[in-house]
Amino acid sequence: MSASSALLNEEVRDKGIGLLKAVEDQHGGVIVNMEEPMDSFVFASLLEASISQWKRQGKKGVWIKLPREHSNLVASAVKAGFKYHHAEPDYLMLVYWIPTTPDTIPANASHRICIGAFVMNDNMEILVVQEKNGRFSGKGIWKLPTGAVNEGEDVCTAAIREVKEETGIEAEFVEVLAFRERHKSFFQKSELLFVCMLQPRSFNIQKQLSEIEAAQWMPIEEYVAQPFVRENELFDFLTKVGLSKLSGKYCGFSTLLTSTSSCKKSYVYLNKIDAAHLSTSKPHQT
Amino acid sequence: MSASSALLNEEVRDKGIGLLKAVEDQHGGVIVNMEEPMDSFVFASLLEASISQWKRQGKKGVWIKLPREHSNLVASAVKAGFKYHHAEPDYLMLVYWIPTTPDTIPANASHRICIGAFVMNDNMEILVVQEKNGRFSGKGIWKLPTGAVNEGEDVCTAAIREVKEETGIEAEFVEVLAFRERHKSFFQKSELLFVCMLQPRSFNIQKQLSEIEAAQWMPIEEYVAQPFVRENELFDFLTKVGLSKLSGKYCGFSTLLTSTSSCKKSYVYLNKIDAAHLSTSKPHQT
Repeated sequence: MSASSALLNEEVRDKGIGLLKAVEDQHGGVIVNMEEPMDSFVFASLLEASISQWKRQGKKGVWIKLPREHSNLVASAVKAGFKYHHAEPDYLMLVYWIPTTPDTIPANASHRICIGAFVMNDNMEILVVQEKNGRFSGKGIWKLPTGAVNEGEDVCTAAIREVKEETGIEAEFVEVLAFRERHKSFFQKSELLFVCMLQPRSFNIQKQLSEIEAAQWMPIEEYVAQPFVRENELFDFLTKVGLSKLSGKYCGFSTLLTSTSSCKKSYVYLNKIDAAHLSTSKPHQT
Repeated sequence: MSASSALLNEEVRDKGIGLLKAVEDQHGGVIVNMEEPMDSFVFASLLEASISQWKRQGKKGVWIKLPREHSNLVASAVKAGFKYHHAEPDYLMLVYWIPTTPDTIPANASHRICIGAFVMNDNMEILVVQEKNGRFSGKGIWKLPTGAVNEGEDVCTAAIREVKEETGIEAEFVEVLAFRERHKSFFQKSELLFVCMLQPRSFNIQKQLSEIEAAQWMPIEEYVAQPFVRENELFDFLTKVGLSKLSGKYCGFSTLLTSTSSCKKSYVYLNKIDAAHLSTSKPHQT
């Protein structure tokens, strides 16, 4: 930057005009939240002056949150060197790393979390559905209720919700039997599928209209006899795990509500049977 | 749409001009991948004609993938009714739901996955670090090595990588001891933290320069005596779980490589000790 432009920026700053409003973050960076509409040329000019200012101040990461209604400003930010960081339906987050050192910008959300629900009644019938959409539709395949865990939702809550939504069955969360990793499942993102066992508390099926073609309690022998299950090492294995759990020979991860130092409550999932003796014991000593 | 504009679109379609190039997806929608640069007015006009066409064809979701270098087209897509779906550093994905029924557009990635590594040597010393950045920096807190699981990376691989990166220690994945859910941890996203036990295979610490202030093998008594651990129900508990595992009294989830019907390999994490008898057993019968 030339001495004259530095001087200009000093002037601009001192007069309190000509810079974008920004707040500092906890990592030596700044965040610009563009709440008001702005002409794209004015924005480009303010952004240039602001970047000079942040460089002088030794700032690291610069974040710009652009609500969708200010999409006219996206191109100017990109032209100034910003990259996209993430987007939600109503906003786009852009980021620019000022230093010459490698950036320490945290990665965007990388995973979708899904649940599969293993729900059996006392007649050894498993709760299964046929889906209207997706790769299993129209193939006569009866599968476990599955669904995505929402942002901000607990895995155990999502399992209960999906079973209720798809089949009308009320159920109680028992434990996570196992989980599976899968990559590039959806726009290059990774997926974790938690297979959860639930204990049914109601039995009258009322299937969801929009996504579910059919739902039923199916004898477990019929379920496992489907080529779809038999020919898939994973599904076959998980069914055996579920049955083993029901006969008391398997222990997955159940929930424990803990609080952190900031008094926030959060669920920990662990082998509670093995951990039962821990709560009062002292740490192991040599 | 008026009869005349419908006619116009028919003409346009028949001549093979005036519509955006799109491919069909598996869910009754279309995907536009804007690989070539385009003037924003031309784009707006083609998009309008294309939407009319897709409506006539009964299409559902319309996706537009806009590389960052074509950010000049974002505003036109938003004006046509598109919302943001997700963004990666080099592209923005927009989506528009045509039908009047509720949309079945899959949710964006909702979670970040992190690992915490519990690594102990034979002298009952635990591998700990002090971080340069973040909420623990400058507080003299010794904590477990932690880090984010990359997109496309397995949890077990990430744990080994983070330990190696932060401390130089080579280690082998043993199992997931437990996992914790946390919400609104980062731009409103949720986070799953997998606490993994690893067996060290080397012992000479070489700390990472950029993110790690210090690293050491610390006697477990000193680690648990830190107020940071003692006052946090979760950390205190997880340390006990780790110690319990080392003394053979706890079983978490270890990995099993399975293949799906499409012959893709993926890891399943489960209680392998309890599941050991499953591989050859028949499903439980009534």
